[in-house]
Amino acid sequence: MADTQADQLAEQVLAGDRRALARAITLVESSRAADRAPARRLLERLVPESGRSIRLGISGVPGVGKSTFIESFGNALVDKGHKVAVLAVDPSSALTGGSILGDKTRMETLSRRPEAFIRPSPAGETLGGVTRRTRETMLIAEAAGYDVVLVETVGVGQSETTVSRMTDMFILMLLPAGGDELQGIKRGIVELADLILVNKADGDLQLAAERSVADYRKATAFMAPREDQWRVPVEAYSALSSAGVDSVWDIVSSYRATREAAGLFTKNRSRQSINWMWAEINGGLVERLRADPQVNARVVELETAVRQNQLSPTSAADTLIDTFIRRTDT
Amino acid sequence: MADTQADQLAEQVLAGDRRALARAITLVESSRAADRAPARRLLERLVPESGRSIRLGISGVPGVGKSTFIESFGNALVDKGHKVAVLAVDPSSALTGGSILGDKTRMETLSRRPEAFIRPSPAGETLGGVTRRTRETMLIAEAAGYDVVLVETVGVGQSETTVSRMTDMFILMLLPAGGDELQGIKRGIVELADLILVNKADGDLQLAAERSVADYRKATAFMAPREDQWRVPVEAYSALSSAGVDSVWDIVSSYRATREAAGLFTKNRSRQSINWMWAEINGGLVERLRADPQVNARVVELETAVRQNQLSPTSAADTLIDTFIRRTDT
Repeated sequence: MADTQADQLAEQVLAGDRRALARAITLVESSRAADRAPARRLLERLVPESGRSIRLGISGVPGVGKSTFIESFGNALVDKGHKVAVLAVDPSSALTGGSILGDKTRMETLSRRPEAFIRPSPAGETLGGVTRRTRETMLIAEAAGYDVVLVETVGVGQSETTVSRMTDMFILMLLPAGGDELQGIKRGIVELADLILVNKADGDLQLAAERSVADYRKATAFMAPREDQWRVPVEAYSALSSAGVDSVWDIVSSYRATREAAGLFTKNRSRQSINWMWAEINGGLVERLRADPQVNARVVELETAVRQNQLSPTSAADTLIDTFIRRTDT
Repeated sequence: MADTQADQLAEQVLAGDRRALARAITLVESSRAADRAPARRLLERLVPESGRSIRLGISGVPGVGKSTFIESFGNALVDKGHKVAVLAVDPSSALTGGSILGDKTRMETLSRRPEAFIRPSPAGETLGGVTRRTRETMLIAEAAGYDVVLVETVGVGQSETTVSRMTDMFILMLLPAGGDELQGIKRGIVELADLILVNKADGDLQLAAERSVADYRKATAFMAPREDQWRVPVEAYSALSSAGVDSVWDIVSSYRATREAAGLFTKNRSRQSINWMWAEINGGLVERLRADPQVNARVVELETAVRQNQLSPTSAADTLIDTFIRRTDT
C-alpha cells in the first residue's frame, strides 16, 4: 500500500466509514512485512485523534454471561446516542487461532446496529501479539468516533491483568456461587476490579445472587484503600430482564468523574501507554533477533555448545546479540 | 586485563587456587565495560570444566535456620571429602546492595575450612543481574573443583523459582508451624520442592515438628505424580543436634540416582542452560538499548509524544529499536 493510500484510508476512518475502519484494522493486524510501513503511517495519522472514549474491560469465567451483558449494555448505550466498539483479548486465540466473539450471533441485535462495531480477537502467536493488535484496534476505533470501548476477556490465565492494563475501568462478572476458588478465579483478580457484577440475579438464582453480593461487599470492605478512594461497588445484575443496565452506566460515569477529579484518569492512560511502549520494545527486539537470518544461521550451533557445556549461556547470548546488531551493518 | 592474564587466571582457578577463584568471580561480577572481554575469555576457558557437581537450592523464610543447616551440612560434607561452595541469590541485594551470607560469622566453622568456599550474593540492579552473576560464580566454582554447590535464598518473592531453575534439586525448609500461609510461603513454592525439611525438630518444638511432617506428607501425597516418579520426602531436622545431616545426604544421592536413571538429570541442566541463554538475550538486548547514547537522546521526546497521544506506543517502540540498531552502523 502506497503512502497516499494509507493517508486516504486514514481520512475515511476519521470520517466514520465502517468499511474503511475494518480495512484499517486488517492492515494493522497484518503480519506481512510490506504492511508495516503503511500501518505505521496510518497509526501516525489516527493516534492523535484517538483517546476520546471510556475504555471498559469486562471479564469473567466462561458461562458467566459476558456476551449477553454486552449485548444489552451495548444496545442501551447506542440508544443513549453512544457509538460502541466491542473488542476481545482471547489468550486461546494465541494458541488455536480461534477466538471469542468469533460468533457475532451471540450479540445479534448489537452487531446489526450501525453505531456498534464488533471485532473478534485477532489470532497471534503470543498473548503479547494478540494484545498489541487489540490495543491498536482500540485506538483506530476511537479515531473513528467510537466513544465507548468494551474489551472482553475470558477469566483464564493472565488475560485479566492484560485487559485491566489497557482499559480505564475493569468490570468483573461473577456467578451467584461460592468463593473465588469455586468460580475458578485466580487470586488477585478480584483486587483488579473497579466494579463487580453478580450476574443471573433472577429466577432460581435470585437468592444465591443476593448472598453473593453480600459476601463480596464484605470482602471488598476489607481491601486496602485505593489511591482514588473509590469504593468498589458490588451489584446484582440480571441480563435476562435487562434490569441494571442504566445503573451500570451510572456507576461507570461516577467512576470516571472520581478518577478525573483525582487527576488519575489521564495519568493512568499515560502510564499505560509508556508501559506498552517498553513492552513493545522488549518483545520487538527479541522478535527481530529471532527473525534475523544471520542469527538463525548461528543459533543451533550455539545452543548445542551451551547444551554440551562448551559455552556459557551468557557468552552465547552475547554472541547472538552481537551477531544481530552487526548484521545491520551490512 | 590482557588476554594472557585472563588465561593465566583461568589456569590458576583450575588448579584450585582460592585467591584466583575469588579474583575470577570479582572479574565476572564487574560491571565495568573493560572487564567484559576478559570475563568472557575466562568463562570460555572455565565453562567446559564446569558441571561436575550436584547443585542444591535451599530456601525458607528468614529465621527457619538455613545458615545453621548449611553450616552443619557443609561441614559434614567436607568431612566426607567433598569440596563445598555456598552461594546466595538474594532479591534484596538488588534493591539495597545488602546481602544474605554477607556475614560469614553465621557459618563460622565452615568458612574457615579450606575445602569450603562461601560467597555472598552479589549486588545488582535487578534480580536478573544478581541471578546471572550467581550462575556464573557457580560455574567458576565447579571448574575450581567444588563438587557440591549450595545456593541459598530467602523465601521472598520469586527468588525460589529463580533458584529452583538454576539447581538440580530444590530443598525447602519449613518451621514446625501451621499451614503455608502462616509461614508466609507463596502458593506454588511447596510444589517446587524436591525435599522438604521441617527444621527445629527439638526441645519444645519436637511434637509440633512431627505434626508438621505428618501434615506435609499428607499434602504432598495429593500432588500430581512427577515426570521422574520421585515421591518428595518430608523429614524432620534438628540443626541443634546435627541429627539428620547424613540422612539428608542420602536423600540427595538417591534423588540424583533417580533423576539420572530417568535420563532427566542432564536433560534438565541442558534445558536450564538454554532458558538461561534466552533470558540473557532478552535482558541483554533491552539493557544495551537503554545504554545506547542515541536511544537516550530520543527517549524523552518519544515518551512525551506517547504520553500526549501524538504517537502510538508501537510506533515509538519501533523508532527506538530502529535508532538502536542503526546506531551500530556508524
